[in-house]
Amino acid sequence: MTQTHDDALTDYEADFASPLALDPQAQDLLFREARTANTFSDEPVSDEQVQAIYDLVKWAPTSMNNQPLRIVLVRSPQARARLVESMADGNKPKTEAAPLVAILAADIDFHDELPQQFPHFPGARDLFAGSEEARESAAKLNAALQIAYFTLGVRAAGLAAGPMTGLDTASVDREIFPAGRHRTMVVMNIGKPGDDPWFDRLPRLDYDEVVTSV
Amino acid sequence: MTQTHDDALTDYEADFASPLALDPQAQDLLFREARTANTFSDEPVSDEQVQAIYDLVKWAPTSMNNQPLRIVLVRSPQARARLVESMADGNKPKTEAAPLVAILAADIDFHDELPQQFPHFPGARDLFAGSEEARESAAKLNAALQIAYFTLGVRAAGLAAGPMTGLDTASVDREIFPAGRHRTMVVMNIGKPGDDPWFDRLPRLDYDEVVTSV
Repeated sequence: MTQTHDDALTDYEADFASPLALDPQAQDLLFREARTANTFSDEPVSDEQVQAIYDLVKWAPTSMNNQPLRIVLVRSPQARARLVESMADGNKPKTEAAPLVAILAADIDFHDELPQQFPHFPGARDLFAGSEEARESAAKLNAALQIAYFTLGVRAAGLAAGPMTGLDTASVDREIFPAGRHRTMVVMNIGKPGDDPWFDRLPRLDYDEVVTSV
Repeated sequence: MTQTHDDALTDYEADFASPLALDPQAQDLLFREARTANTFSDEPVSDEQVQAIYDLVKWAPTSMNNQPLRIVLVRSPQARARLVESMADGNKPKTEAAPLVAILAADIDFHDELPQQFPHFPGARDLFAGSEEARESAAKLNAALQIAYFTLGVRAAGLAAGPMTGLDTASVDREIFPAGRHRTMVVMNIGKPGDDPWFDRLPRLDYDEVVTSV
């Protein structure tokens, strides 16, 4: 009985001492056990799954509530074959085989939505209207934040995400966004992991290499 | 009894039908109930909390395991005062008052770490060594992904994050990174929310406005 009591105390103290409020199972699902998959099972990924992911991650923050991210689900075999042509050679086989492939791009005309999305600051749209260069920079920063949120959302759905930047983005832009108002940033394979899906875990920088104080 | 049985079945069916594996409490903590705080309590944020956040989010993916993110915790009153001078007027009061302020920047010489961080591809460093422009672009993309992961990590620690891009980043670069090898991207206030911390929730684009198929 004393042993049991001590164990319970120890568990309680461990929980109390953890600086994280997120439960360990969720930590594993999103960060520690989740991995970038290189092979996938055949199980399809439905539009309902993608909508549940989007409807969760859309709440995460961006600058001035800018929402430049656009997602194109590559559903037809013809569009998939054309996309594979634009991928770097090392990314072609998994992009051919993944249950779902998505193109994640930044809409550089996101400012047109700010009167609805950031209504308490009526000058928001005009702030970006003057310089397409500044707008493209803001679009890419905020779309990158949204891509990271979406990646964790895919994991929140119990799926593996395989985001890739090894591709000819200009070629995808011409094919998928002929009006020239979007910048392709990442192509992402999505699905349940298949056989032998992981490479070895790569090292990460230590806390002391990344975080300093002034 | 029939009523109880029906309720249980309904709950079970609802769980079974949800496309998300992440438990609803964690969904709320990270996405739905978390908000960008504009006021904070006095409770300090310790280095141990920041380390727990970093040691969780460091596992999230970037391109080729690039890790350009650098985090500077602004701990001294003198450094805080100088940083506040670089903030846009609307961001000054909360940056003065937050329990912890962090500068999140991209190290454009991240490629020097690739021999350790991406060891199976010995040419990785040289791929980036030739063009500082391409490297800065890769540094900013991957640092933005890491900033988004860190933002969710702050929330995973039960804290509110207030990321801000309204500041004179060139002035912060000169002050904090005099060697000229970093690009300040975001300043983030971190702490427990204070009195009346939230603005009204701003609208998000609908699924159909963001996601299309080809």
